[in-house]
Formats: sequence, structure tokens, C-alpha cells
Amino acid sequence: MWLIDATPALFTDLYELTMAQVYFKKHMDQTAEFEVTVRRLPEHWGYFVMAGLAEIETYLEAFRFDENDVAYLQSLGTFETDFLDYLGQFKPRVRIRALPEGTVFFPHEPILEVSGPILDAQLLETYILNILGFSIIEATLAARTVLAAGDKPVLDFGLRRCQGPISALRAARGGQIAGFKATSNVFAGRALTLLPSGTMAHSYVQAHDGEEQAFRDFAEQFGQNAVLLVDTYDTLEGIQVAAAVAQEILEAKGIRIKGIRIDSGDLVALSRFAREYFDKQGLDFLRIFVSGDLDEYKIRDLLEAGAEIDGIGIGTRYSTGRHAPALEIVYKIVQYHGRNLCKSSPDKVTRPGRKTITRVTDSGRHENDIIGPFDPAAPDLLRPFEAAEPMETIQRRLAQELAALPGPFKAIRDPETYPVHFTGSR
Amino acid sequence: MWLIDATPALFTDLYELTMAQVYFKKHMDQTAEFEVTVRRLPEHWGYFVMAGLAEIETYLEAFRFDENDVAYLQSLGTFETDFLDYLGQFKPRVRIRALPEGTVFFPHEPILEVSGPILDAQLLETYILNILGFSIIEATLAARTVLAAGDKPVLDFGLRRCQGPISALRAARGGQIAGFKATSNVFAGRALTLLPSGTMAHSYVQAHDGEEQAFRDFAEQFGQNAVLLVDTYDTLEGIQVAAAVAQEILEAKGIRIKGIRIDSGDLVALSRFAREYFDKQGLDFLRIFVSGDLDEYKIRDLLEAGAEIDGIGIGTRYSTGRHAPALEIVYKIVQYHGRNLCKSSPDKVTRPGRKTITRVTDSGRHENDIIGPFDPAAPDLLRPFEAAEPMETIQRRLAQELAALPGPFKAIRDPETYPVHFTGSR
Repeated sequence: MWLIDATPALFTDLYELTMAQVYFKKHMDQTAEFEVTVRRLPEHWGYFVMAGLAEIETYLEAFRFDENDVAYLQSLGTFETDFLDYLGQFKPRVRIRALPEGTVFFPHEPILEVSGPILDAQLLETYILNILGFSIIEATLAARTVLAAGDKPVLDFGLRRCQGPISALRAARGGQIAGFKATSNVFAGRALTLLPSGTMAHSYVQAHDGEEQAFRDFAEQFGQNAVLLVDTYDTLEGIQVAAAVAQEILEAKGIRIKGIRIDSGDLVALSRFAREYFDKQGLDFLRIFVSGDLDEYKIRDLLEAGAEIDGIGIGTRYSTGRHAPALEIVYKIVQYHGRNLCKSSPDKVTRPGRKTITRVTDSGRHENDIIGPFDPAAPDLLRPFEAAEPMETIQRRLAQELAALPGPFKAIRDPETYPVHFTGSR
Repeated sequence: MWLIDATPALFTDLYELTMAQVYFKKHMDQTAEFEVTVRRLPEHWGYFVMAGLAEIETYLEAFRFDENDVAYLQSLGTFETDFLDYLGQFKPRVRIRALPEGTVFFPHEPILEVSGPILDAQLLETYILNILGFSIIEATLAARTVLAAGDKPVLDFGLRRCQGPISALRAARGGQIAGFKATSNVFAGRALTLLPSGTMAHSYVQAHDGEEQAFRDFAEQFGQNAVLLVDTYDTLEGIQVAAAVAQEILEAKGIRIKGIRIDSGDLVALSRFAREYFDKQGLDFLRIFVSGDLDEYKIRDLLEAGAEIDGIGIGTRYSTGRHAPALEIVYKIVQYHGRNLCKSSPDKVTRPGRKTITRVTDSGRHENDIIGPFDPAAPDLLRPFEAAEPMETIQRRLAQELAALPGPFKAIRDPETYPVHFTGSR
């Protein structure tokens, strides 16, 4: 599913392995505690949404150095034979506590804790960060987009311009968690049991002798699933041609095609024209989909300006995190052999020791979070993690979390800062 | 190498398949010509660098719908049995012309042309765009970074925060094309025959009883390859501890360790302090590496401010294309069945017909480009593509291209616009 059958243990920075060799040779095998935090919210974001644990589960299960991996490492001349033999039979022995997927969280909160022999826990750093970082970006962007779109269905069209096929899967799954209706990505559709969705490209219209023939062929083939792309030439004309073909198919076969897609131009004016035109023709069943470099800000603006929209396709800006392509996500040691640790380099101060997160609520509304020293008896947002939850559980959790988060913290622009307090851990 | 053994044919938007079904049922099987172009340069970029063809070669070779793929498509209820049978034995029959990797190019220039039956050429759209877009971003960013770094070696540290493992490979290969010295990414090191490189993490220093023991263990293990991270606590002190350990190892074993890495703080002041301190102690062999959210702009500023640097690690900003995470890259039909095609929707006008690119030079310097109607007899930057070239060929080409591009077009900030003229194709 995540395409990591191929030697996922090598998805790592070399220094994880050089450090590991020192730990191995020096018999540093006591338990270390690492925690993952995100240092800062991107501009205009009020919260993060936890995601990525399903992929982490797959990664941990698949983690091994196979013979080819070991032979490659040997060829570098950096590693000693006894250490390479050790890697050849290595399986990470770690326990994980994490925020369940779909949980809303804030900067500096521990979101995932890895406990185990320092060698084991260190080796997982690079790829756990890689998985969590973009998974959180996409789940959060998806939540923001769904909030902006209100009751309008959102569709993920992001595959073609995202940075790779795994990032596309992370984008599709983020959308799934937040409630997107479908994805254009067929591979993600299969891997994640998502509805794949698609219409037609401009090239399809151009290859035909005119829009009418292109639309007719498509409507006859796909019937009630047909969505016609109307902006290849003159969009106002395209809308009228689509209406004529919809009328023709309705009369000839009694079939109501699904609608149209507008991918450029003034989406407010064009969608309003289309809605009015269709309704006048008795084609009120035709739905209007829009796309074209949209994001949560543009969607909010479109809807506030009165666009007549029945569905929204988002692509590049979503699937690359245009406004926040990376998070300041870090994996820091907080304890080794029972000793609490922190670092003090400028701007990168860490807080020592394992922690518990308490979320204070009032009448079901989130009030503030308190981060304190680890207390196994206290209610804690961090929970032992072994296997991913069913998608419905994650979706329901995010919906509840967003409902419980007061409006000012989830504003799409200029949100208020949610209060997070640290107690007794310094 | 590119992890696409798993059903790469499903790395596609559903609409490629719905359109294909219409072409199949309607016997639209004439030759189509598609071209890939990029509409606009990101802010401060003066050119693009072609990259991605090696991955396209792998993609085309691996392209097939296996039994599971066909069964999945069947389960959607959208496709007819004869079409699914056709997909089950489908291999794309296309010819490709492309700019060779490492070629410098500009907006609106055709960089890759796909010719073949319209069904075949259309099916490749989504993933060809996915491959080319981020490969070009990374090769271009790498070229910009190397130009900013001058004679200082650049290292790719971007795996942990990039958007996925394939995007990390694209980043590593972009760096390889432009002349990066190494990558931290072990998988990329193996897949691309790149030098993997790494030092140590702050956690490693913290897990020891003090910096001195941490540095000593590492220096003893890795000798002349050891690079010590000095900014976990007080960086000025860390530099002095590193010097003491280097002196100790030199005296005890006659080994000169490699150097130090500074990952935070005022890199100009700290690197100058370290250089002066090392030189005074007779440790002039110690090299100084810097890292920490660097990009071409910050590198240029550091060097202009007199930082004493022997190597530069770049991470997040490079490996996610922070300032340009996606390009406006499109795959447009320009001819079908001998008929030249264009579209006329607002802001997305395309130019009809196949094209030839002529690069006009004067005394070996690039003067301007002329895009005209396809002329098989003319010198043309687009060349038939079948298999990727050796990396050395690509590296040499890029070096020559950048040497031939006059300075104002390759400025890192506010470059001039390179002249590209269109003739006779409208």
C-alpha cells in the first residue's frame, strides 16, 4: 500500500547508522525516550491534525535490512562486520505512544513518543519524521479546506503536480480523514478504498470535431456519471452546448447526466450563469463542479461571492502544501537510562523528560492543554499505539475534535492562539 | 530504483481511463501529439533545468495493468469488459522527443513531446507530469544552490522533511546533476550511486555524559571521517571541546578527524571563531560544515558576510522546493490526426502543432531561443528519447549550459528574462 516493501530500512540518513555503530560497539543499550513535536504553526493555521500512524505501522512491520542492504552498507567501508551482522538480523524493539489519528494538536506538544534501546529508537528517526510531517500537513489542510467548503463536496485532483506517488497517497488519506468525497488518483483509490473520480481533459474535447460531439460521446458512454468540461474554447458557449447534450440524452434515453466542470475564468460569474441557464432549461439536475488552482482561501472567497457550486476539485495547492510544504517537525531525545535530557542551542531548546498531555474541556469545548511530567494514572491524549484504527473511527474523531474546538481557533485566516501550558517539567 | 514496480499504470487520474474508454469504443486511434510545457518561472528564477527522463524510462518500461489492476478497475463499475481486456494486454506505443537532461530551458518551450495513438499518449499524462515537475524543480534548485555556493561543496540532507521517498530520490538526483558532493539519504545513495554522508545528531551528544565523551567515541570509531556536531549546548564551548578531542586523537593515533558541524546560531560569527581557534591550535585541517534551514539565498548571504565554511548541508527548503513546491507544468495536445490543435480558455491559451526549438548562440553564449513549426531538418534542442544518458554526460551538459548562459539570466535574485521568440506557428 505504501510502496515500502523495498528496503524501508534504507529510507534513512546515514548518521542514524553511524551513531548506531557507536552505540553497538560501546554497548550503549539502555532505554531512550524520543518525542516528536512540531515547533511552529504555519501562517494562518490555528491547529494541526494528527495523521500518519497507518503508514508508521506498515513501516515498522516491514523494517529490516535484507542481504542486499547489508552488502551495500558493507561496500561503503564505514561499518564493521560485527555491526553489519547485527543489522542483518535486526528488528526494532520499540514501544510507541501517540496521539490517535484525527486528534487536533498544537506546537510543542509531544505527538508521538518512541521508547526502546537507544539504537533501535534512533534508527527510526528519519523516516518517522518523513511520514508524520507531510501526513499532518495534508490532514490539516484537508480539515481547513472542508471547513472552508461548508457543505460542498471536495475532491482531490492533486496527483499530477505533487512531489511523488507516496506524497499523493498521504494527500489522499489526509482528505479521507477530513471527509473529502473522492480522489482522481486511481492508485490511492485502490490502496485506501476511496472513491476514484474524474471527468475529461481539454485534450479530449480538442481531439473531437467540436464540443458537441465530444460531449455526446462521453455522455453516451458514462450516462449519469458524465461530467462535461466546458472551458476549452468559449466557456459561455460550452455551458450551452453541455445543456443541449444533456437535454438530448434526457429525451432520447431518459438519462440525467451528472453535470459540468469549469476549470478557468471567473468561476463566480460562470457558475451563476450556468446555474441560471440550466434551471431555465429544466435541467436543474445538472451539477456544477469547479477546479483550477483552488485552496481554502479561494474556496471561501468563491462561496462568499455567491458562486453556484456543487463540488470543488483541489489540486496543486493542496497536494504540495503550497503555503506550508514542510513543518518544523523534530524527533528529540528527552530521556536516556532514566536521566532526563534537554538541549540548549539557540532557538532549538527542548523540554526534558516524558510527558502527559491533558486537554481541559468545558461543556465539551476544548479550553486549553496542559503538558506535564508523564503520569501513567492521569488522563492523557497520548495513547499506546500498535495498529492503525478503522478509518471511520479516525474520521469521527476529527469531526468531534473540530466541533469541540471554539471558532476563533479554527478560523482560516488569523486564528487565535490556543492556550498550551507547561507545568513542572523543567 | 524508483519503487514503481507496483502497478505504475494506476499512478493516474481516473479521467485518463474514462477518456481512453471512449477512444477505444469509438475507434479513435489516430496519432496524437502532446507536448509538455511550463507556463511560468517561479519568483527569482531565470531558467529551468531539464530532469526526470531516467525515471520516465523506468515508468514506460514498467507500465502495464496487471490482473489485480484490471480486477480493481472492473470493480468500479465504470468500464466495459472489452476495454478491460484491452487494458490487460496494453503496452504504450509512443515515441518521445525531449530536451536532454541537464539542458537549460524557459517558459512555454516544449520540453517533451509524446507521439502515438491518442489513447496511449493520453494515458501517460498524469505520471509524466508528476515525474517531470518535481525533477525539474530539484535540478533547477540544485543548480541555483551550487551557483550560490561557489566552490563550497553542497550536501543534500533533505530526506526527513521532504514529502515522500520518491520525492527524496528526485531531490538527490537533482543534486547529482548539478554537482552536489553527497547525500544523507542512504536509499538514494544506493539507487543513484551517490556518496552517502552523515555526522551525528544532537541526541547522540545528549545520550553521552558530556560532549567530550560523545566526540571521543565518535572520533575513535570513524577517524578521518568523523564530523562532530558542536551546537547541542553552548556552541563556543562545543567548538573548543571538538578541538581538544581532535588534538587528542591526532597525538594518540596520528589521525586527523574531518571536522565539525554547526547547525544553529550565527553561522558567520561561529564559523569565523572556529576557523581562527582551530588554526591557532595547529588544527588547520579541521573542516567546518554548516546546516540549518539553508537555501541558495542564505548561502549567498553567509558567504558574502565572510563565513568560514568548507561544506554546506541543505535540507527542508531544498527537498520540498520551499519557494516553488510545484510548477505550472502542463501536458497539452497540439495535433490529432494531422490537424493542429489549440485551446482558447482564458489564461490557458496553447500554441498548436509540433515544434522545433533553435537556440541561437554567439561565441558559445546563449543569445535567444526560437520556437518554430517542427522541422526535421533543422537543428533542434528536442531529440528522440529512448534511454537515459550516463550521469556524467548529463552533469557535463548542465555545466556547459550554465557556462554558456550569460550572468544576468542566472542571477539568484531578480534575473533578466531570457528572450524566447515564437515564429510562424499560429
